[in-house]
Amino acid sequence: MNYRRLGRSGLQLSELSLGSWVTYANQVDIDAAKEMMAAAYDAGVNFFDNAEAYALGQSEVVMGEALKALKWPRLNYVVSTKFYLGLASPKDRMALNGRATLNRKYLMQAIDGSLKRLQLDFVDLVFCHRPDPGTPIEETVWAMHDMISQGKALYWGTSEWSAGDIRAAYEIAERHHLHKPVMEQPQYHLFHRKRVEKQYLRLYDDMGLGLTTWSPLASGLLTGKYKQGVPDDSRGARRDMAFLVEGLTHEAKNAAVAKLEPVAADLGCSLAQLAIAWAAKNPRVSTVITGASKLSQLQSNLAAADVIPKLTPEVLQRIDEITLKLAD
Amino acid sequence: MNYRRLGRSGLQLSELSLGSWVTYANQVDIDAAKEMMAAAYDAGVNFFDNAEAYALGQSEVVMGEALKALKWPRLNYVVSTKFYLGLASPKDRMALNGRATLNRKYLMQAIDGSLKRLQLDFVDLVFCHRPDPGTPIEETVWAMHDMISQGKALYWGTSEWSAGDIRAAYEIAERHHLHKPVMEQPQYHLFHRKRVEKQYLRLYDDMGLGLTTWSPLASGLLTGKYKQGVPDDSRGARRDMAFLVEGLTHEAKNAAVAKLEPVAADLGCSLAQLAIAWAAKNPRVSTVITGASKLSQLQSNLAAADVIPKLTPEVLQRIDEITLKLAD
Amino acid sequence: MNYRRLGRSGLQLSELSLGSWVTYANQVDIDAAKEMMAAAYDAGVNFFDNAEAYALGQSEVVMGEALKALKWPRLNYVVSTKFYLGLASPKDRMALNGRATLNRKYLMQAIDGSLKRLQLDFVDLVFCHRPDPGTPIEETVWAMHDMISQGKALYWGTSEWSAGDIRAAYEIAERHHLHKPVMEQPQYHLFHRKRVEKQYLRLYDDMGLGLTTWSPLASGLLTGKYKQGVPDDSRGARRDMAFLVEGLTHEAKNAAVAKLEPVAADLGCSLAQLAIAWAAKNPRVSTVITGASKLSQLQSNLAAADVIPKLTPEVLQRIDEITLKLAD
Amino acid sequence: MNYRRLGRSGLQLSELSLGSWVTYANQVDIDAAKEMMAAAYDAGVNFFDNAEAYALGQSEVVMGEALKALKWPRLNYVVSTKFYLGLASPKDRMALNGRATLNRKYLMQAIDGSLKRLQLDFVDLVFCHRPDPGTPIEETVWAMHDMISQGKALYWGTSEWSAGDIRAAYEIAERHHLHKPVMEQPQYHLFHRKRVEKQYLRLYDDMGLGLTTWSPLASGLLTGKYKQGVPDDSRGARRDMAFLVEGLTHEAKNAAVAKLEPVAADLGCSLAQLAIAWAAKNPRVSTVITGASKLSQLQSNLAAADVIPKLTPEVLQRIDEITLKLAD
Repeated sequence: MNYRRLGRSGLQLSELSLGSWVTYANQVDIDAAKEMMAAAYDAGVNFFDNAEAYALGQSEVVMGEALKALKWPRLNYVVSTKFYLGLASPKDRMALNGRATLNRKYLMQAIDGSLKRLQLDFVDLVFCHRPDPGTPIEETVWAMHDMISQGKALYWGTSEWSAGDIRAAYEIAERHHLHKPVMEQPQYHLFHRKRVEKQYLRLYDDMGLGLTTWSPLASGLLTGKYKQGVPDDSRGARRDMAFLVEGLTHEAKNAAVAKLEPVAADLGCSLAQLAIAWAAKNPRVSTVITGASKLSQLQSNLAAADVIPKLTPEVLQRIDEITLKLAD
Repeated sequence: MNYRRLGRSGLQLSELSLGSWVTYANQVDIDAAKEMMAAAYDAGVNFFDNAEAYALGQSEVVMGEALKALKWPRLNYVVSTKFYLGLASPKDRMALNGRATLNRKYLMQAIDGSLKRLQLDFVDLVFCHRPDPGTPIEETVWAMHDMISQGKALYWGTSEWSAGDIRAAYEIAERHHLHKPVMEQPQYHLFHRKRVEKQYLRLYDDMGLGLTTWSPLASGLLTGKYKQGVPDDSRGARRDMAFLVEGLTHEAKNAAVAKLEPVAADLGCSLAQLAIAWAAKNPRVSTVITGASKLSQLQSNLAAADVIPKLTPEVLQRIDEITLKLAD
Repeated sequence: MNYRRLGRSGLQLSELSLGSWVTYANQVDIDAAKEMMAAAYDAGVNFFDNAEAYALGQSEVVMGEALKALKWPRLNYVVSTKFYLGLASPKDRMALNGRATLNRKYLMQAIDGSLKRLQLDFVDLVFCHRPDPGTPIEETVWAMHDMISQGKALYWGTSEWSAGDIRAAYEIAERHHLHKPVMEQPQYHLFHRKRVEKQYLRLYDDMGLGLTTWSPLASGLLTGKYKQGVPDDSRGARRDMAFLVEGLTHEAKNAAVAKLEPVAADLGCSLAQLAIAWAAKNPRVSTVITGASKLSQLQSNLAAADVIPKLTPEVLQRIDEITLKLAD
Repeated sequence: MNYRRLGRSGLQLSELSLGSWVTYANQVDIDAAKEMMAAAYDAGVNFFDNAEAYALGQSEVVMGEALKALKWPRLNYVVSTKFYLGLASPKDRMALNGRATLNRKYLMQAIDGSLKRLQLDFVDLVFCHRPDPGTPIEETVWAMHDMISQGKALYWGTSEWSAGDIRAAYEIAERHHLHKPVMEQPQYHLFHRKRVEKQYLRLYDDMGLGLTTWSPLASGLLTGKYKQGVPDDSRGARRDMAFLVEGLTHEAKNAAVAKLEPVAADLGCSLAQLAIAWAAKNPRVSTVITGASKLSQLQSNLAAADVIPKLTPEVLQRIDEITLKLAD
């Protein structure tokens, strides 16, 4: 496993990392989480991504228990969380200040809740999970700064923010001498490239932005498993993931995936490994967050690290020819 | 109940809210406070206004006990307090640094006292209850900033400050990179409009000022109950409220109130509901603080929320024709 | 007793206040301190001046015990301390970083020691007791700012600093957005006027500097008691005060004091009361610190408050004619 | 022993001080450390230099135990530590964020570890032990500022940084109103002069940089003991110091050392004393850190203080003629 700096910061992340979205506390219990985290760590993974909203806080509980049992030195691993959605039930109409917001009231209470669930004194990375047009960016920047000043987090960033909003947060922090955002967590895969490759372009140099990218497999589409429709045991078949089905069964994209098969075969790797390695090949990417519900799947995903150096300019061009016209 | 952002901040308040002035610990004990707060919360009210000076601290004690009993999630409600008058007895001539002041000595001790009485770790909103020409605005801004940095309050603002003083506080905070004032709590009703509608005009856009307005009923004048003089069971008859009598029995204003009765009748609402809805109709107003000493009164007041959409431009003009010449 | 703002700050001090220099723990024990502080408080005094160096910390111990016994509300009194000299024995040659310095190491340890001796959570005023040319003003400003940010003191200032150094401290704090100095404690009496009346002139308006002046009686010279030499029971006869003798027996000054006697007689007051009232007459002075080793002396000194309004322009001119040529 | 200000700061250090590199926990146990520190303190030494990396944290443990036993007043001594290398085993490949770095994650955890090992509430001086091109200087400056704001250290500086990097740290701190670096710890001896004498030249005036220099004896070369090769009981013979051998047996340098012998003899001192005194003669040097594994060696080194005034311009020129052409 190789390591990369998180943007221009001094923190180094494994180029492949492990996320808990979808899986922890849903498909994966504490023992399984512990087993997979241990395997990832043994393979060199040092970044474990999480969010308050994953499994409504239970993903943090599971990871917290696993970390406690694993007893790794605190310097050796990096844990994140993210805030925006909140934990309140959608039926709790009075929770409007704690749902889909980045206001100060929510953020200051959210971090304390996450640290308690994770059983940690601090998280390494804290993300604003989505932009909130209903809160001034300055209010959010102050709250993130205060989290860091109070020692509850080390670095802060954004997830799925526009280039303009990220820039605004950076400039406000610079002007008021506050801790600046360091990283962004965007979706990035063969069919979703423009934000990372075009829109954020100036931010890499101007503010040293680092990326922790998610969904390298396009929710599974890039594994080829949706070529014949939605398999029963797939994510697309889960009731709470129904919103993914239209994208997963996209005809032209599945056809392109089929055309990627010989490319993968030529490299001696699976489609999933090809897709993960492709995302990690972009030097702007600090780490590609992978997910897994089974140990074998995790190990297969992490083996993509060996594919990265095989992605020569020629291979990349072959991939572009198949997929670029379908990418947004 | 609808919700509005507190000015440009990310915090959302119910358009009608519940204040404890005059009533708590005077006419209302803990059980009654609990009952009324519960009813307000059930109706969608999420902001409960308070001040150190209300009933000399007892209003905070009562609300603190009620909140403790009600066990609402902390994210679901917003509590305020205000500092300026202090709690010292007027006979305690040595308490001059803790009375009618916004100096650092008083403010830093006052917040600790309020949090103890309220049994809270923090208040959401903290107000400078009146301007203090005897303390530099910069000294007050620093103290309010320190309260927020220390986590004892989330947002700060002013009450009954001039536009110039609010602007000064904002600019000083901006220059020294301190937490800025977010809201103002002015008196606002049909007979007291100029501050909100004229003097503060630039502040809404320039600094995103939010308003939590008080006295929508002009101390009861707008309910029509003072048309025939001061009833025995009214606020105007209370010895400690004697200063209100002159205003409450103002002849021309009571005549105007009488002329508002058919307007209310046409809308199918009471005079009080009309007055409350009128204040809330102003989009600059974040929330209208209402008071009540009885549950039935509270419910009647909150029903004003349904009147707000009925205040068409035509109705507003009818109201203006009756009241505008009498308003300051 | 009248009260004045400490310069432009929002803190109000009694125009006459009580200092513990020379007396506490030397001539005055805890019981006597308590008795005199109670008498001063009853007379309206709200400021009690102290310093780490007075009686090598024992003056703070005595005042702390007295305050504890007196149980006044914390808002009702103002306590100061001062740092520069340190508490180390002159024989302790290794204590050079804690003696005659305003470096960060000394200051950060000194405040903790003072608070412990005073049994207080914070002092209201903290002074840099003398200038330290061996420490950059910026280092001292940062340390004083940190004391205030940490809640260990409310306001900071200087004592016997030059106008240029005070200005430098103010400008450095302004530039770096730190807590600014608010007050200065200079010697001020009929024979020592230029610093207050000339050198600091611009500072009053430019930075709102307040003054807490010391030695209104010029160490006793202005009481007239040294006209015939040094009495056995006077401060001038104390071995540790020998450095004062030359000044106290100055022939021309004692002659001038004799000429002030009819002025005092015309006002119906003592020479000491005249001198104290004269210092307090200057509107730039926030408070005149008086000292006393006996209750009767304290009461006589505080009665000078009644003399202040009697100092008409004519009386002040008479006093100037006698003393101005001898003043530095 | 004379004392000098640490650059333009208000802290004073003994011109000769005691370091624990190489020796503590390796050649020196707690009892010996205590004995030598007591002897140094008796000779006037007030600065005891340390680093997290010396003997992998054990040097801090030894010094902490010795300090605890010696019971000196905290104001009387100055302790340093340094961060960069980290304590992780080179075999722990997952510790990459805690090894050879100045990132925030490492620094914030490192200071807590050092304070625990030293059994202190704060260190006086904290150094960035080496530059880290893999972390932005701004990230490091913020972390050092936070250490000082939190009271865990009093002054911060660098060790073996280039003039440009030191300047950058200073300017970033100035711009963002953070605590600025105060000192640098460079190697400085007769054969290694350019950094101190040329490269840092502007920094002394522009930012008041102080120097705590190390290796005055060039790892022993300047004692003359390597003239005939590496003695069995010397540092050069230690396996973990093998990297020093080439430098220690440099022919021309050892020949120069031989020519310095008559210079030392004329001054009535040893070669080691001459070399230590020479480094301390530079007024830009705040203190020369000396090391010792035996009490007699310590006492001999400290006696170099008496040699400093004997280094007249003529003597210094004689020394330059012998060594300058060999110095880098």
